[in-house]
Amino acid sequence: MQIQTCFSPSQYPLFHAEDSIVVVTDILRATSAMAAALDFGVEKIIPVASVAEAIEYKNKGYIVAAERDGKIVDGFNLGNSPFDYMDETLKNKTIVISTTNGTKAISAAQKAYKVVIGAFINIDVVANYLAAEKRNVVILCAGWKNKFNLEDTLFAGALANQLINKNNFDTDCDSTFAAMHLHDIAKDNLFQFLEKSSHRNRLKNLNLEKDIAYCLTPNSCISLPILVGNEIVNFATKIIV
Amino acid sequence: MQIQTCFSPSQYPLFHAEDSIVVVTDILRATSAMAAALDFGVEKIIPVASVAEAIEYKNKGYIVAAERDGKIVDGFNLGNSPFDYMDETLKNKTIVISTTNGTKAISAAQKAYKVVIGAFINIDVVANYLAAEKRNVVILCAGWKNKFNLEDTLFAGALANQLINKNNFDTDCDSTFAAMHLHDIAKDNLFQFLEKSSHRNRLKNLNLEKDIAYCLTPNSCISLPILVGNEIVNFATKIIV
Repeated sequence: MQIQTCFSPSQYPLFHAEDSIVVVTDILRATSAMAAALDFGVEKIIPVASVAEAIEYKNKGYIVAAERDGKIVDGFNLGNSPFDYMDETLKNKTIVISTTNGTKAISAAQKAYKVVIGAFINIDVVANYLAAEKRNVVILCAGWKNKFNLEDTLFAGALANQLINKNNFDTDCDSTFAAMHLHDIAKDNLFQFLEKSSHRNRLKNLNLEKDIAYCLTPNSCISLPILVGNEIVNFATKIIV
Repeated sequence: MQIQTCFSPSQYPLFHAEDSIVVVTDILRATSAMAAALDFGVEKIIPVASVAEAIEYKNKGYIVAAERDGKIVDGFNLGNSPFDYMDETLKNKTIVISTTNGTKAISAAQKAYKVVIGAFINIDVVANYLAAEKRNVVILCAGWKNKFNLEDTLFAGALANQLINKNNFDTDCDSTFAAMHLHDIAKDNLFQFLEKSSHRNRLKNLNLEKDIAYCLTPNSCISLPILVGNEIVNFATKIIV
């Protein structure tokens, strides 16, 4: 089983293979928020790429989250902070989400064999699922407006290291090697390593230190969010139930 | 002066700015070969993106090099080994070159303020030129068929480290940070670090160890290849003369 890493949604067509599982990651903060939401009890998430689609859903009466450039879009009540979703009133509900990068990455990968939502907060659950599925894996980093970003790359490196060291995966992909090397030098203090990352500083300016600490802490969740049709549902819960 | 690093020619439009200098690099082997050729005395290089264009020039009587997937294209006499260009009969000649990745990257960047050809073999000359020009810099890695590759990224990291540590450049670009970190861990033995790189293995299979050793050795050349119109000429020679 081979691992490849794609640093930008716009590059995904170069990595697409019908029989590969794609792990989409947008650590700060879309996929972390989705994993947290399903873990907390949200029933389904409908990811949409554009604000226009988000507005359409809102007009139909859905609960809708929309974030651009780190901020909640005017007219919406939810953004992409994981803490927004730890709300009793959202349990068993369907939520529509549109974010700057994460939902675009999900949209880019939708024709893959499976699309799994990965984050540090559910990394072990995702790794165990991939190990059981025994298929080639593409880790798709949402990046920042189609550019490379460090936090998603560190997650790619962490996941690849885990799959290669524990689960007989392999890689001949330079971007995966790069991600693993970067994770090796960052892993003892991801927070400090990202001190210089442009996106982390962007979030710091928005006073999101608490979100960042949460998003960089592994395995606080046991959710396994997988895209089924146009909805993301929690397969971990279904296995446990 | 800000440094940005673009990991793929297809991503270049995200980085383009009219007043930036673009350093195009394709370490194994196009830009190394170009720097070597001009250093050896080739007068001009005309980079062309497609084999079709290369054939047109050949039919017009030009000396034409064409490489795809590491091999010389059938019907041509020159590929992209730097040693191909260390030939007395090529001195003061114009050579047309088309390669898998490097010439496509040059073509992508052609509307930049300046396009400079960078490689480990002329890294100090390029860094000194950039320091004197005092403009924002985009390091454009040719990659491999629009995917990220390690050897071009290591060059980007080496150049960025040099410009930031010695010449008051700065960066807020995650891909530049990543490249600098990777160069930091690889710099003591680039050859060994690249042992696992897919492209390096591809070249190894073609018995190009001698080329690789040459391309990874810094500062064997003093050429400063810059694109002027559709031709690459050696500005270092002109300054010295």
